[in-house]
Amino acid sequence: MKIISSISEMQSLSGSLRLKEKKIAVVPTMGSLHEGHLSLIRIAKQNADIVIATIFVNPVQFSPNEDFNKYPRNIERDIALIQKENADVVFTPSLEEIYPKNFETYVTTEKSSTVLEGKFRPTHFKGVTTIVAKLFNITKPHVAIFGQKDAQQVFIIQKMIRDLNFDIHIVVAPIVREHDGLAMSSRNVYLNVQERNDATVVFQSLQYAEQLITNGEFNTFSIKNAMKKMISSKRTVTEIDYISIANAETLDELDMILLNSKTLISLAVRLENTRLIDNIVIGN
Amino acid sequence: MKIISSISEMQSLSGSLRLKEKKIAVVPTMGSLHEGHLSLIRIAKQNADIVIATIFVNPVQFSPNEDFNKYPRNIERDIALIQKENADVVFTPSLEEIYPKNFETYVTTEKSSTVLEGKFRPTHFKGVTTIVAKLFNITKPHVAIFGQKDAQQVFIIQKMIRDLNFDIHIVVAPIVREHDGLAMSSRNVYLNVQERNDATVVFQSLQYAEQLITNGEFNTFSIKNAMKKMISSKRTVTEIDYISIANAETLDELDMILLNSKTLISLAVRLENTRLIDNIVIGN
Repeated sequence: MKIISSISEMQSLSGSLRLKEKKIAVVPTMGSLHEGHLSLIRIAKQNADIVIATIFVNPVQFSPNEDFNKYPRNIERDIALIQKENADVVFTPSLEEIYPKNFETYVTTEKSSTVLEGKFRPTHFKGVTTIVAKLFNITKPHVAIFGQKDAQQVFIIQKMIRDLNFDIHIVVAPIVREHDGLAMSSRNVYLNVQERNDATVVFQSLQYAEQLITNGEFNTFSIKNAMKKMISSKRTVTEIDYISIANAETLDELDMILLNSKTLISLAVRLENTRLIDNIVIGN
Repeated sequence: MKIISSISEMQSLSGSLRLKEKKIAVVPTMGSLHEGHLSLIRIAKQNADIVIATIFVNPVQFSPNEDFNKYPRNIERDIALIQKENADVVFTPSLEEIYPKNFETYVTTEKSSTVLEGKFRPTHFKGVTTIVAKLFNITKPHVAIFGQKDAQQVFIIQKMIRDLNFDIHIVVAPIVREHDGLAMSSRNVYLNVQERNDATVVFQSLQYAEQLITNGEFNTFSIKNAMKKMISSKRTVTEIDYISIANAETLDELDMILLNSKTLISLAVRLENTRLIDNIVIGN
């Protein structure tokens, strides 16, 4: 497995692989890998000849008050895990080369970045679309793999690909969960024992919503209220940033569940200092 | 010569040309071609195996009060001119395919787009960087040719390429001028006889500035004043939007000319309803 940190070296390797008609998949990560990331690499391998995993903790997608500095980093462990999955390249660029002096060019999805997560993290998706556009131009993939855990991120990257005509196909990988249903996240390490126990309510509330809908409750206001009540019962839950029930194709909030279209139920919950997100998609 | 309007057809042609190791150059235009554009195509031919000229009048780079609707269009004549230059492909996409419903992704150079032209055309460069990023992803060039006439556009596109890691080399083509020095522009057709006569003052003022500097005048305030006086003497000049003497590497305004670095002298002048721009670069 090659470990590359230079942008021009990565570009020329991808360029020559393309000339050899190799199909390239990229798996962008911020490192601190868990089973969710590893599942992305496995899916990448099924979809391409060459798998490039990238590791870069992107400061531009963190707000000043967020956890950029304390975000978990363990590059040696990450590289070992990626190697075990038989990826071909790990791309680990430096901060200085990704954001050189006088960097000033950003990619923004102006509407989708303002809802859901965007309301609570107003500059987050601008950081995401900018780094992903850069990584696309550097790794030159045919296919890119993203996890459904960050549902809005997937939506926005697909929008960016369509709007800016990136000739890249996105594969969305299902959420990988702990045995008790908690969605895997690099931020789960922040949780203490009590918080980790309470955190299961995040996914439980989504399952509860699905059950309510199956039982015929289509009023999203009632469903959200039931979820809220369930979540608030946990002692370490300090804030529910949002509970959203939206058209999965547009992210527009719904008043009533429409069973003939896909509905994204998503939420963000704070347990003391840790912010967790999760989602399910229901309907056809 | 191929005429292509479909984005996917253009992408797959460029993809297969790349697999054949053909070097691709793109010349992005808004049509209404003059000698300046044709010189870009000739330079493209010297730099690549395959030359793609694009024609697209990009609404996003015009403000609502600007001349998008009356901008000169003559696609048949343009195609004939491009064919005469032995380009290989003309790409003429539709408005609907370039900006589909719910388009929302923009590329912005946040600092460089606010000075010079950007002060008078606040959304202009956002439109330029967005369409150029799209055209890069559609035509997949190794080389792109832009004219020095739009000096700030060249600066901003080079900034975008560096910041977003487009693996594309820019060739900047010198300004092509009429016999009396007026820089060629698709907008010159707007000028009536008197305005066309007066318009020569735009380049004359740049030559005058260069002469003053050669004679030892390094104070940019004095140089700008002398230029202003010369330009204002013309009856049909209704407004001088700006006269700038800036560091060509940063676009920062200069108080004093520094002969050991490149200086961009640029200006925008309105003759009744027509807005003309021009520039020279002096120094090393």
